[in-house]
Amino acid sequence: MTFQKRTHNCGELRIENENQEVILNGWVAVVRDMGGLIFIDLRDRYGITQLVIEPNNYPNLAEKSKELKSEYVIWAKGTVRKRENPNPRIPTGLIEILLNDFSIINRSELPPFEIKDDLETSEELRLKYRYLDLRRHSLQKNFLIRHKLYQVVHSFFDSQSFIEVETPVLMKSTPEGARDFLVPSRINKGRFYALPQSPQIFKQILMISGFDRYVQIVKCFRDEDLRSDRQPEFTQIDVEMSFIDREDIFKLVEGLFKRVWKDILDIEISIPFPRLSYNETMTRFGSDKPDTRFQMEIVTITDIVKNSNFKVFSDTISSGGVVGLINAKGCSDFSRKKLDELAEFAKKYGAKGLAWIKLQDGEINSPIAKFLDKSELDSIISSSNAENGDLLLIISDSWLKCYTILGALRNEIAKQTGILENVSDKFAFLWVTDFPLLEFDEEEQRYVSMHHPFTSPMDEDLELLEKEPEKTRAKAYDIVVNGAEVGGGSIRIHDGTVQSKIFSLLGMSQTEAESKFGFLLDALKFGAPPHGGIALGLDRIVMTLCGTENIRDVIAFPKTTSGLSLMDGAPTFVEEKQLKELGIKLIE
Amino acid sequence: MTFQKRTHNCGELRIENENQEVILNGWVAVVRDMGGLIFIDLRDRYGITQLVIEPNNYPNLAEKSKELKSEYVIWAKGTVRKRENPNPRIPTGLIEILLNDFSIINRSELPPFEIKDDLETSEELRLKYRYLDLRRHSLQKNFLIRHKLYQVVHSFFDSQSFIEVETPVLMKSTPEGARDFLVPSRINKGRFYALPQSPQIFKQILMISGFDRYVQIVKCFRDEDLRSDRQPEFTQIDVEMSFIDREDIFKLVEGLFKRVWKDILDIEISIPFPRLSYNETMTRFGSDKPDTRFQMEIVTITDIVKNSNFKVFSDTISSGGVVGLINAKGCSDFSRKKLDELAEFAKKYGAKGLAWIKLQDGEINSPIAKFLDKSELDSIISSSNAENGDLLLIISDSWLKCYTILGALRNEIAKQTGILENVSDKFAFLWVTDFPLLEFDEEEQRYVSMHHPFTSPMDEDLELLEKEPEKTRAKAYDIVVNGAEVGGGSIRIHDGTVQSKIFSLLGMSQTEAESKFGFLLDALKFGAPPHGGIALGLDRIVMTLCGTENIRDVIAFPKTTSGLSLMDGAPTFVEEKQLKELGIKLIE
Repeated sequence: MTFQKRTHNCGELRIENENQEVILNGWVAVVRDMGGLIFIDLRDRYGITQLVIEPNNYPNLAEKSKELKSEYVIWAKGTVRKRENPNPRIPTGLIEILLNDFSIINRSELPPFEIKDDLETSEELRLKYRYLDLRRHSLQKNFLIRHKLYQVVHSFFDSQSFIEVETPVLMKSTPEGARDFLVPSRINKGRFYALPQSPQIFKQILMISGFDRYVQIVKCFRDEDLRSDRQPEFTQIDVEMSFIDREDIFKLVEGLFKRVWKDILDIEISIPFPRLSYNETMTRFGSDKPDTRFQMEIVTITDIVKNSNFKVFSDTISSGGVVGLINAKGCSDFSRKKLDELAEFAKKYGAKGLAWIKLQDGEINSPIAKFLDKSELDSIISSSNAENGDLLLIISDSWLKCYTILGALRNEIAKQTGILENVSDKFAFLWVTDFPLLEFDEEEQRYVSMHHPFTSPMDEDLELLEKEPEKTRAKAYDIVVNGAEVGGGSIRIHDGTVQSKIFSLLGMSQTEAESKFGFLLDALKFGAPPHGGIALGLDRIVMTLCGTENIRDVIAFPKTTSGLSLMDGAPTFVEEKQLKELGIKLIE
Repeated sequence: MTFQKRTHNCGELRIENENQEVILNGWVAVVRDMGGLIFIDLRDRYGITQLVIEPNNYPNLAEKSKELKSEYVIWAKGTVRKRENPNPRIPTGLIEILLNDFSIINRSELPPFEIKDDLETSEELRLKYRYLDLRRHSLQKNFLIRHKLYQVVHSFFDSQSFIEVETPVLMKSTPEGARDFLVPSRINKGRFYALPQSPQIFKQILMISGFDRYVQIVKCFRDEDLRSDRQPEFTQIDVEMSFIDREDIFKLVEGLFKRVWKDILDIEISIPFPRLSYNETMTRFGSDKPDTRFQMEIVTITDIVKNSNFKVFSDTISSGGVVGLINAKGCSDFSRKKLDELAEFAKKYGAKGLAWIKLQDGEINSPIAKFLDKSELDSIISSSNAENGDLLLIISDSWLKCYTILGALRNEIAKQTGILENVSDKFAFLWVTDFPLLEFDEEEQRYVSMHHPFTSPMDEDLELLEKEPEKTRAKAYDIVVNGAEVGGGSIRIHDGTVQSKIFSLLGMSQTEAESKFGFLLDALKFGAPPHGGIALGLDRIVMTLCGTENIRDVIAFPKTTSGLSLMDGAPTFVEEKQLKELGIKLIE
């Protein structure tokens, strides 16, 4: 069980170390017996170093080496020497270690898959043997990036006078939006803690406490039906500031991202980021998290076709809807089948149909051309800058649906035509601002908050709250990069009266508001400063930095989409006794 | 709702800023109307600045100021000028701001207690209004220290090539020691996640994954009946390293503490810390977490009194026990009543009685003197360096009880005689090593791990495992400062066979071991490196740095000893619907 401790790791020896006597510890990656010489690639987190045994001089080592297999752990002692055949692909490639001693520290069974970067094995198997999966360099580098991100975040916020404060994990259940994970209390039977969906109220309380600038890298929890890019527990960079307006948050976060991209990827990103209102980003890109690495902006043609003979358009418009299109450049050769597939795709987003116009061989080819005047067609073509070879995809629907469908089509065309591939090394950041405060939930037949109920309405929209709540804009903002929302925040309500009014607009009785959020309403009575903040999705930022679309590539021990941890089998059944102590039982 | 944003905070203006026009934001601490002038102390996290209104020149401001009350939030604009009566106690004391404008941003009701450092109000009220409690400078400074500690920890470990990795909060329940907090799974009904008591297994898995050096500042959870210095959620600095022995951990942690004490308190502590075996610390100080800021070491007098006529001593010894004493210097004037109280105190630790010898006025005064020979008395006195005026407190009992009781008496005497008070500005660190691997649990009638079941036995004690398990020493260590354990760790088992043997010694069947820890046993099969680590109690370290004995002074939103959060009322009852979705119900 004893072993000789390393003097160096497997990634640091260079030609300057020639003739040094060293000891390495690590995992056997490969053993190659070339007859005259035996080579062992020894691996650790820091790199790979070639060991060499000369059977003529060390017959006993040669004999011992026959026992070695992949993933055996060994210590090895020897002298650094220049390689005859350098390997320029690895930093230690100029040297090797001529061994004069080594021993096995621990053995390994045959791993269920090879420890290499381009692995073709099921994710299930990889997650079950996560400790082997995590030995792969391609995954380890993600966690080094994640580690660096933590460091940059800590030091950036520290340099800006922020205080890191830990907020409770065992807190009060105030479900609003997603479901809470609950934790039964043993000491107070019948009662439950909840795991935080975000430390939102606590960070506001910290502002009311006068902490002025708060930051925390914090685990949050949502008991949702998981999609492939969601995890029941996720990490956010949680920020709150007092005596500020949203421009302060923008500058702060821009400064952070600039430093992160520089320190981690050595890329200079340009700040400030564009600021687009919700209205603008929806009408131009059909999404509140647009991918602005490419153009293909939406063109609204409502005015052009509002009096058209094509009833689908004119009826939609007369009932308050809009008509828009995207120009899929150079796609006029899309087959009928492909267009049908695009129509199917659009239907998934709620489209009733998909109209199209091809500009092919100098001619217009379109099922709807016969319903349109020449002047209408000309206007459509000129407004969308369409040229020969282009394909226009047209949607008519209510405002939100029309733009949302066009936004989805825009992304789909970018994917299908290789545009996305071409911009994959670019980073396009933007702020989306001026979100609506509320949206009407048809199912619950009431207004719900678009962000959360603590978001401040715009000062100039305050009077709309009574008359036309749905028109009230919020002091809310999202930060978006490459079509993914990486954070969202707002200026919060610091006036108790306004906060109560919002609760009531959301259909909460005063009793309910008191019972759920009474402590916040109380706190607002004792001199709450104006404050606001943001929560940045750390997992998503790491994904962007690592260039992966799989959230499980950046979380060391992730859950599957059914919330399972395949390595340890959590969640598990527990003993009856444990439940009894908690005062709960399973429903039969 | 709009306000003029500050140009400076309330702690930064100096005489160098004279004549500058500035805007401040903050809380009104005090308003003093001196007739000719009105003074306002404005407070924020950074300090206090004096504002002044000249009613003659600004009658409207004077009028508006009548509305101001404590804890109102205002913005104030004016010119920095030199004070006529400087206040040397605050950094801004040389200047004041002559206002030309100000407005109220938010009002405050009368707070339930004053916002000041030396507050005489119940902790209950303070916890209910935690946002007001946290406005007090004396608490805010604790959280600044806590913040600084995070920064030092992050940068220290980063500089030593450690990787921060987040381990899961929703994990598998493997109760061993304390109770787990459970979290019902909605998607997998009838099954439960557990909150981690520590990320122990995950950090070992990370070593098996080759991460080599891991650190995390991490929340841990224990569902215990709380004592005043415990919280259901607490924070630890969690560390693990591969290819090391315990001396590497000692050096690492000593380096960390040295930097923490230097960077935060500007105190140079001396390293390396003393290393005392469990046996030595028990027999010298009667505790495995001794307060070594003062002496008063235990003297074992077993050999002196083993043939004594005093049956209490000789019988104890002949049945395997020991006799020891502490010399309470200068305490010979303790009254009979005080001695009775000490005897009562000792009984709480299981003492059957407390013998004493006073050296008073050149005479020996003791109820047991008559049972002892002169030579025995002389030996006792000389071995304990007793002088006139001293009081010897003697305990005879089994080894563990005798020393534990004497250790408790040692601390109690230090408290009562002012010794503790005298050393309150000192810091005494030490390592306690060579703990027993197992202890026999009389209640469960089986061996339990003294640290945890993953602790490696000493190599030279491996064969004791079979024959005399209770004599096996562990590669475990604790770090202690000023009589409090601030961390503990061990070299872990990296050999699957040894790990299985330990599980079986702990009374676990193979099936049970597989079902609880199968994934660890599996992982140990694939090339586990030798590894070890430590978990440092962050809350306790902050307490030591802040000089407080109240853990709630260093946790922003603590729970009471009944697990309640008085501010928000957690835990709370939840809706039937929520429980039903989780597949559980309350036991009637």
